[in-house]
Amino acid sequence: MSENRTYKIHFLPNDTFVEIEEGNTVLDAAHKASIYVNSICGGDGVCGKCKVILSKGTADAPPTSLISGEEAEKDYVLACEAKIVEDLQILIPQETRLEGKKILYDQNEQHSLTWAAAVNKAEFKHNPLVKKIFLTMEAPTMDDTVADHDRLCQAIMMDQGVELNTIQTSITIVKKLPEILRQGNWSVTATLARRGPVLEVVEVQAGDTSKSNFGIAIDIGTTTVVTCLMDLGSSKVVDSEAIYNSQMKFGEDYIQRIIYAIQNSALDEMQRSIVSDINKSVLALVERQGVELKNITSVVCAGNTAMIHFLLCLDPENIRKEPYLPTANVISPFRASQIGIEINPRGILYALPSVGAYVGADLTSGAAAIRLDKEEFPCLFIDIGTNGEIVLGNRDWMVCCSASAGPAFEGSGVLHGMRASEGAVEIIHITKDYEVSYTTIGNVKPKGVCGSGLLDCIAELLRRGIIDRSGKFQKDIKSGRLRKKEDEYEFVLIEKSETGIDSDIVITQADIANLVRSKGAIYAAISILIESMGLSVDDLHCIYLAGGFGNYLNVRNAITIGMLPDLPTSRIQFVGNTSLVGAKMASISEEAFETVHKIASQMTYFDLMGNPKYMEGFMSANFLPHTNLNEFPSVAEELSN
Amino acid sequence: MSENRTYKIHFLPNDTFVEIEEGNTVLDAAHKASIYVNSICGGDGVCGKCKVILSKGTADAPPTSLISGEEAEKDYVLACEAKIVEDLQILIPQETRLEGKKILYDQNEQHSLTWAAAVNKAEFKHNPLVKKIFLTMEAPTMDDTVADHDRLCQAIMMDQGVELNTIQTSITIVKKLPEILRQGNWSVTATLARRGPVLEVVEVQAGDTSKSNFGIAIDIGTTTVVTCLMDLGSSKVVDSEAIYNSQMKFGEDYIQRIIYAIQNSALDEMQRSIVSDINKSVLALVERQGVELKNITSVVCAGNTAMIHFLLCLDPENIRKEPYLPTANVISPFRASQIGIEINPRGILYALPSVGAYVGADLTSGAAAIRLDKEEFPCLFIDIGTNGEIVLGNRDWMVCCSASAGPAFEGSGVLHGMRASEGAVEIIHITKDYEVSYTTIGNVKPKGVCGSGLLDCIAELLRRGIIDRSGKFQKDIKSGRLRKKEDEYEFVLIEKSETGIDSDIVITQADIANLVRSKGAIYAAISILIESMGLSVDDLHCIYLAGGFGNYLNVRNAITIGMLPDLPTSRIQFVGNTSLVGAKMASISEEAFETVHKIASQMTYFDLMGNPKYMEGFMSANFLPHTNLNEFPSVAEELSN
Repeated sequence: MSENRTYKIHFLPNDTFVEIEEGNTVLDAAHKASIYVNSICGGDGVCGKCKVILSKGTADAPPTSLISGEEAEKDYVLACEAKIVEDLQILIPQETRLEGKKILYDQNEQHSLTWAAAVNKAEFKHNPLVKKIFLTMEAPTMDDTVADHDRLCQAIMMDQGVELNTIQTSITIVKKLPEILRQGNWSVTATLARRGPVLEVVEVQAGDTSKSNFGIAIDIGTTTVVTCLMDLGSSKVVDSEAIYNSQMKFGEDYIQRIIYAIQNSALDEMQRSIVSDINKSVLALVERQGVELKNITSVVCAGNTAMIHFLLCLDPENIRKEPYLPTANVISPFRASQIGIEINPRGILYALPSVGAYVGADLTSGAAAIRLDKEEFPCLFIDIGTNGEIVLGNRDWMVCCSASAGPAFEGSGVLHGMRASEGAVEIIHITKDYEVSYTTIGNVKPKGVCGSGLLDCIAELLRRGIIDRSGKFQKDIKSGRLRKKEDEYEFVLIEKSETGIDSDIVITQADIANLVRSKGAIYAAISILIESMGLSVDDLHCIYLAGGFGNYLNVRNAITIGMLPDLPTSRIQFVGNTSLVGAKMASISEEAFETVHKIASQMTYFDLMGNPKYMEGFMSANFLPHTNLNEFPSVAEELSN
Repeated sequence: MSENRTYKIHFLPNDTFVEIEEGNTVLDAAHKASIYVNSICGGDGVCGKCKVILSKGTADAPPTSLISGEEAEKDYVLACEAKIVEDLQILIPQETRLEGKKILYDQNEQHSLTWAAAVNKAEFKHNPLVKKIFLTMEAPTMDDTVADHDRLCQAIMMDQGVELNTIQTSITIVKKLPEILRQGNWSVTATLARRGPVLEVVEVQAGDTSKSNFGIAIDIGTTTVVTCLMDLGSSKVVDSEAIYNSQMKFGEDYIQRIIYAIQNSALDEMQRSIVSDINKSVLALVERQGVELKNITSVVCAGNTAMIHFLLCLDPENIRKEPYLPTANVISPFRASQIGIEINPRGILYALPSVGAYVGADLTSGAAAIRLDKEEFPCLFIDIGTNGEIVLGNRDWMVCCSASAGPAFEGSGVLHGMRASEGAVEIIHITKDYEVSYTTIGNVKPKGVCGSGLLDCIAELLRRGIIDRSGKFQKDIKSGRLRKKEDEYEFVLIEKSETGIDSDIVITQADIANLVRSKGAIYAAISILIESMGLSVDDLHCIYLAGGFGNYLNVRNAITIGMLPDLPTSRIQFVGNTSLVGAKMASISEEAFETVHKIASQMTYFDLMGNPKYMEGFMSANFLPHTNLNEFPSVAEELSN
């Protein structure tokens, strides 16, 4: 076998060089260089999101309808299809890039729960999963010859009010005790970790170091990894870091990633990828805050079932194979260092529990954060990510399901859709004259539209009669914004001159169809859950809506397009990233951690895929707001005006 | 620095060669060659036990009174004092050798509890600390989508009747589950280990492998390590192996070893030494029995506090420093592989709990084995090893103490004393004509006298008036057996022509003084315990006597010499190596394991050293049977006949 030739690829604007063998694609080169490139389909050449510009050199790229004639002239190619046959310079255009820094995770205080308010409302007792307690013991005498370790355990037992046989200490720690106890003159700080019924003595230090105890709470999103540094003593969120999940290079959604993991035996590689993301985030946080890694004693992780499987290197294959089984929903805590997470080497990782293949720890964590388990009357809690995960219930019962809503409201599958990061249009108004006003995150030139903006957009198009109830553009409206391009109608939201990208920002007929399907899937699932419990919409005490829509979400518009049932908006609350909030709460409260587990064990899973009524409901909901206007009286009235 | 010269040392009868640098002692060379040489004082040149014969070459040995003129002529030297200055051939004489094979551990069934009888009497529920259970689960369907690990845990929960949150599984095991569950077609064998309140899933295997589950029970004696292979399913003792504790090269008693460990920073080395002993024993057992190491899932260890410290590499320094503290009495179970013990890599080691520096897991284990915790009336349990450990109590209370009896009844500090191994005289009778009859272990030529023989010897010497009640030889008796040698009287028990060693077997005045001191220490401790509880000897329902005396112990003689209080012999039971019996019971019964812990926590420790009454009592007991004959009416009567 002759050795393959290698070529040098120069990526702009990153100014990064990488060498790669002939025959690899530009996307392969980008992965090798650790440069994120949008790629929803995971490299199958079908989504058209990975467009790059060949600024120097030529690649072997097959013709594709995903590149317009105009784009072709500007040397656009699909990175996943362009095979490397010579040295290249590649320019990654604005819309194809993933920004590493400016992901939003904190919800606007006016529109969602702040941390302080959430903690206050949840009423969990402050008692961190890993705590540091300062203990002062009597020095031994001839009349008190209790052994060193037993003396410590008795002090812990008294302080914590636990039974002696629930306290466990590894030999490694016991070995060091005689020196530490005497060095501290019988006053020491014990780091105690909750591990099921056991309280593990994780570390013992001379003197009082109880004030320096930090934890990490993480929401591992399919797209975004948000990491919070928690002061476990004071319950305060010290700082947060949000970065893209670098597993995106293996596929944009988790089904693609599972396929990639199995076809390429890449599970270990995918674990390393997410662990590296976490380590980078933690390092950024500790450097910024001057915290020592050894003082970080716990990590609490929320995320969907697949993300938790990738983190723990658990086989995800059965998640996508009938009858759709996770390898594990409930995971015993273990040492974070075991999977390479760099905190205190004896620090503990707590993975929050899932309910099933498609109802993950994001939903259980969120349900605990909003205290669904304390509600007297039935409430609905909806977390919209790549899937819509929904739970209906109260303190006595909970039923849940997953709707394959797709990631449209996360900006995927929508031409100018994007995640809620800097430059995303988050609010859209359309006047009667079809003029568009908008605000962008960070007040910069718009680069695309995030979930809340897309939701506004559909509602406003409907309100102004630009689209009809089937979502179809009304060709006869008098506006230059509606135009036909390559056989498809599109509506120009923002002209190229105003945008931060090299084109107009538009919404196409296909985008609208995608978004309507997405909201229809959610609404149909909600309806089935309500019906299956013999309830009606009016029985809902409250709806909690969570997800990565953006800072802000106009809940009225969510009703107008028929995503949420027609309830007074006062009974609907946008709660932001509750998955993260739950993880934060669990890190500072054993009670919160146990509540997440209790909720997970209480939830009854409804499989919608095998339910013929769901398909029926989905077809009916594939309309704005719905085929049956009687289900949306307030919208019927609004539209008739 | 010039390099030291090295010499070749040839040991006989082992026929082992070793090279060692100039200036080392013959004892150092023996250690290097891993040849055990008796050395009570640990190399300080004061005990005279390490005599060897220089059969070729000369060593630099200072003159010593411990070598008689006769011995000096035969080229005897003390191995610990003889410095090497040239190549040597060393003959280790019979009495200086430690036999590697023929240690007795099973007590004669007629005189102590057999395993079956002990198990039967103890009434512990069969429920091994590590068990293998065969589980058959329903295969998942679309209506039953419980995750793999959760399905397994539910099956365990149902089978074992435990709460779900007490079952813990490490990620390593969870990872392999999907394959194993499907390979076993949802029938698997789970290995479950009790770890405090947690039931850990240690291993999962496809199909039914529940029949192959073995455990190791060990009594780590200061002198002898006895290792039993237990069939955990059937509770049977499959086989046993007894070897000398190779730590003897660091000092014969544990105080010397502690000093050695600290002065030489040799704790790691001492741990390796005992771990290697255990590994060798286990290997011998599995090879003999055709058991696979991976099917050994647990190790239960009993032993005195220092031995457990050495095994776990815990700092033993404070054991011998006022106020005499162990590093730990109670140890959480951990993976045996963590300290290098070669069984199933995920198998668990359980160290039984001590009470204090001088009351160890040997006593707690033994007290559980005889079920002291179930006795209605006060009983006395005495375990005589290097120390005498004594507990008085019943189901409601227990007080314990340690008497520094010294190792005389283990054969140390007695000229021809030896352990209960092949060639040891175990029974001695002396006729009115001062003739001696005896039996030896293994029916071979006698090499020395073990504990039971020494006890008989003192009693018979007293009975026949050869010694008086102060232990002094009566010079006027008419027997050639009583003779004076180098200013000291001695009584010839067996003439050289009959022995398996190159001399007569005698008992000297110094030996008798040693044995009387030893029994006196035990009796004084017993008296103080009884008195401190406001009881009298007659209140004792039963006395259990344990220790390495031999197969057989004449309890009447133990009364005659005043070691045990004057009770009818029907109320005294010789129970053998109860430390080992307790470890065996714990391995097959969680209840037994918990009972040992309960007993350890119940025992109140009496420090005798600080008690002036103890010294007084000891002085009074330094007589045969006692200064106050009123305490021994039956002996008074016996002696008056």
